[in-house]
Amino acid sequence: MNPCFEVFSQGEEIITGQTVDSNAAWLSQQAVQQGFTVTRHTAVGDRLADLVGVLHEIADRADCCISTGGLGPTSDDLTAAAVAQAFGTPLKFDAAAFTQMQRFFASRNRPMPEANRKQAMLPEGAERLDNRWGTAPGFALQQGRCWFAFLPGVPSEMKAMFQESVLPKWHQRFRLKPSTLVTLRTVGIGESDIQQRLTSVVIPGPVQLGFRASLHEVQTKLLFPHGYEASAREELAAHVAGLLGDAVFAIDRSGAENGDLACVVDGLMTAQGKTLAVVETISQGSLAGLCVGSAWLLESRFEQSRSRLAASLGVVLDAANPMASAQTMAGAVRQQSGADFVLVQLYAGDRTLLQDPGQGVTIHTLLLTEHGSHPATHTVAGSGKRKQYQAATLALDFLRRYLQSRL
Amino acid sequence: MNPCFEVFSQGEEIITGQTVDSNAAWLSQQAVQQGFTVTRHTAVGDRLADLVGVLHEIADRADCCISTGGLGPTSDDLTAAAVAQAFGTPLKFDAAAFTQMQRFFASRNRPMPEANRKQAMLPEGAERLDNRWGTAPGFALQQGRCWFAFLPGVPSEMKAMFQESVLPKWHQRFRLKPSTLVTLRTVGIGESDIQQRLTSVVIPGPVQLGFRASLHEVQTKLLFPHGYEASAREELAAHVAGLLGDAVFAIDRSGAENGDLACVVDGLMTAQGKTLAVVETISQGSLAGLCVGSAWLLESRFEQSRSRLAASLGVVLDAANPMASAQTMAGAVRQQSGADFVLVQLYAGDRTLLQDPGQGVTIHTLLLTEHGSHPATHTVAGSGKRKQYQAATLALDFLRRYLQSRL
Repeated sequence: MNPCFEVFSQGEEIITGQTVDSNAAWLSQQAVQQGFTVTRHTAVGDRLADLVGVLHEIADRADCCISTGGLGPTSDDLTAAAVAQAFGTPLKFDAAAFTQMQRFFASRNRPMPEANRKQAMLPEGAERLDNRWGTAPGFALQQGRCWFAFLPGVPSEMKAMFQESVLPKWHQRFRLKPSTLVTLRTVGIGESDIQQRLTSVVIPGPVQLGFRASLHEVQTKLLFPHGYEASAREELAAHVAGLLGDAVFAIDRSGAENGDLACVVDGLMTAQGKTLAVVETISQGSLAGLCVGSAWLLESRFEQSRSRLAASLGVVLDAANPMASAQTMAGAVRQQSGADFVLVQLYAGDRTLLQDPGQGVTIHTLLLTEHGSHPATHTVAGSGKRKQYQAATLALDFLRRYLQSRL
Repeated sequence: MNPCFEVFSQGEEIITGQTVDSNAAWLSQQAVQQGFTVTRHTAVGDRLADLVGVLHEIADRADCCISTGGLGPTSDDLTAAAVAQAFGTPLKFDAAAFTQMQRFFASRNRPMPEANRKQAMLPEGAERLDNRWGTAPGFALQQGRCWFAFLPGVPSEMKAMFQESVLPKWHQRFRLKPSTLVTLRTVGIGESDIQQRLTSVVIPGPVQLGFRASLHEVQTKLLFPHGYEASAREELAAHVAGLLGDAVFAIDRSGAENGDLACVVDGLMTAQGKTLAVVETISQGSLAGLCVGSAWLLESRFEQSRSRLAASLGVVLDAANPMASAQTMAGAVRQQSGADFVLVQLYAGDRTLLQDPGQGVTIHTLLLTEHGSHPATHTVAGSGKRKQYQAATLALDFLRRYLQSRL
C-alpha cells in the first residue's frame, strides 16, 4: 500500500477565488509520481481556528502532508502560530533562519523590515527548510501519523524548496515506489478519436491509462507502477504510439520532456537547416507567434483582403480552386523570400464565418518544399479565437509531420 | 453575519493533479460577490467512503455547498450514490431528466449509450437542476444546516448551470447582501508601481482593496460591502482611476464587463471607423494574433531581417536612429496599404538579446495617424515568449491610449 498524501493550502486569496490553487495540482503530480496515493486537498482562509482544526484532522488521517502559504511577515500569516497551538509546540527564535533572511535583504541592498523577524519564529522541534529564493523559511515536523512540510505559497519558491528539501527527505522517510509516466503527445486527433483507436489495446491491470486534452495538444498518459519491467513498458508505449501514428509529435518520459510542438519543430528545422516563409489567413499572425525566437522563420504576412494579397505577390488567383491558388502564392513567396519552404493556408468563406462558433471552416494548407507541393485540408471549429489557434497549430503540425517523415 | 459557503470538488483528475481546480476559484468568486463568506475548499478522488465522509462533514459545518464533478455516466462517477448513502436518500429514476438526455443525443444524431441511463437516477427528495449544455443533470437538496447543489465538473456546463439554476435559488433561500466589485484594469504599469501610486489614498474600513496581476494586465479591485452608498463608491473608484491615469483601459463593475484590451481596442477602432497596418518585429505576429476577427486590421508583416524588410518596402533605413527608421517605414506602409493608421515597432539588438531572460530590450514604437507621428519607447524583459507578448500588448495599448485621447 502506498503512503497517503494530502495537500493543505492556506490563504484568503485561495478561498475567495482570487488565486487558482495550481500549487495543489503540482504537488499532487509530484506525490503520485514518487509513489504516494493522494487522498485529499483542503484549503481554508486566514482564520486561526480553521487552521488548527484542519491540522488536527490531517495529523490523524494522512501519512504525509505538504502545506503551502501563510508563512509571510504580515499579521494574517498564521501557519506557524496554528502549528504551535494545534500541536503544543511553542514558537522559538531560529537564529540561522534570521541570519539567512538578513543575508537575503543585504544582497538586495534593502533594509529588513522589523515585521520579517516573525518569519524566524519556528515551532519547537521542527526542522527548518531553507528558502534561498525568498524570505520565508519553511519547516517540517512529525505529528501523529503524519509528516508535515510547510512551504511558502509563492509557486517558484515552493517548487524550488520542494526539489531541494522535501524530495530527498521523502525518500529518507518513506519507502516510496516511484512510478514511471510515459506521455504520448499528439496534435490533430481528438480525445475520443484516440480512445477509439486504442479500443483493441489490452492495458495490463497495474498500468493506468489517462488522457489530458488542452487547446494545444492531447496527451495520452501511461503510468507504470514501480518495478514494471522496462522492456514491457517500452513495448506497450511503442504499440500505443503506433496506433496513434504520425499524430504523435513527442513522447515524454518521467523527467525527460521534449517541450511543446513549437520546440519540436524548432529542433527539426534547425537540425535540417531549412528556412520557412508563411502566408497566414485564418491564423492571423499566431503561426509566426508560436515560432518566437526561431532564426529559420524568414517572414510571415497577413492580409485582410485576398485580392490585395494576390496583388502584393503579383499573382492571379483562381477563386474556384483554393489549392491551385495556394500553389501559385507559394511559388511567388518562395521566389521573393528565398525560403526553402513556404506554407500557405487559405480558407473558403469570410470573416463572419470565422466568428460564428456554430460553423466549422475548411482550411486548404499547402507546404511547398524542395520535393514539391504537399497539400492537406483541415477543419477548424469553435469560437473565432479557437479557430485561429487551431489553424496555427495544425499548420505547424503539418510542417512537423513532413520534417519527421524525412528523418 | 454572512452565511458560510464551501466548495467540494470530486475527481481523480483533480486529486492527482492532472487538472487544476479552477472551478473552485470561480465558484468562490461568485459566492463572495453574492454575500457569502467562503470558509473551505475540499477535493477528494473517486472513493465512495471519502465522498460520504466529506458530505457528512460539510452538512454539519456549512450553510451552502456547491459540489462539482462525479455526475458522469461511468462507474467511477459516484456522487449520486455517495449522496444516497450519506443522507439516506435512495436513488430514483427521474423521467424528465431521462427525456432531456434523450433529446440531447437526438439533437446530435447520436444514439444514447445505455450507460447514460445512470445519470437520470437522482437522490429521493432532490430537486433536479437542468443541464441544457451536456448530458449530466445536476441536483440540489437540503441536508442538516447545509443546502447542497451538485453540478458537473465540465467548467462550461458548471458555469451555465450556476447562472441559470443556482444563482436564482441562492437569492430565494438565503438573505444575501451582495457586495459590489469595481475592477480597474491597467496595462503598462506593474503591481508595485500601482501600490506606490495609491499610498496617499485612504481606503475606508469596509472596502477591500486587492490586486491581481497576469501577463495580460494588472487588475486593481475595490470590493464594496452591501449598502455602501453608490455615490461614495463611484467617488473612490474615480479617485483611484485618476491616480492610475491613462494606464486604465477599462473599469468593470459587477456584472458589467468590458472584455480584454483587444476587445476595448476593437470597439474604439470600429466606432472611430479607422483601419490599421502593422509592422511587427519583436511581437512576431502576436500583435495581429490579438486582433483576431477585426475587420480594421488590413495587414501585418513580420520579417526576420531588417534589411530585407527595408528592401521590401523600398526604403533606406538609418540604423543609428530607430525612430527615424520607424517613421520612414510607416510612411511607406501607409502608402502601400492605404490604412489610416500604421504601427511600427523596432528594437535595438538581435535575436540572442531577445532570448536572454537576463536582458531587457528597448522598443521604439511609432504610431502614424492623420494627426502625425506619435513615438514612444517601452522596455520589455523576461523570457523570449514574455518579451514577445509584452511587445504586442504594449503596442496595442499605445494605440488604445491614442484612440481614447481622441474621445
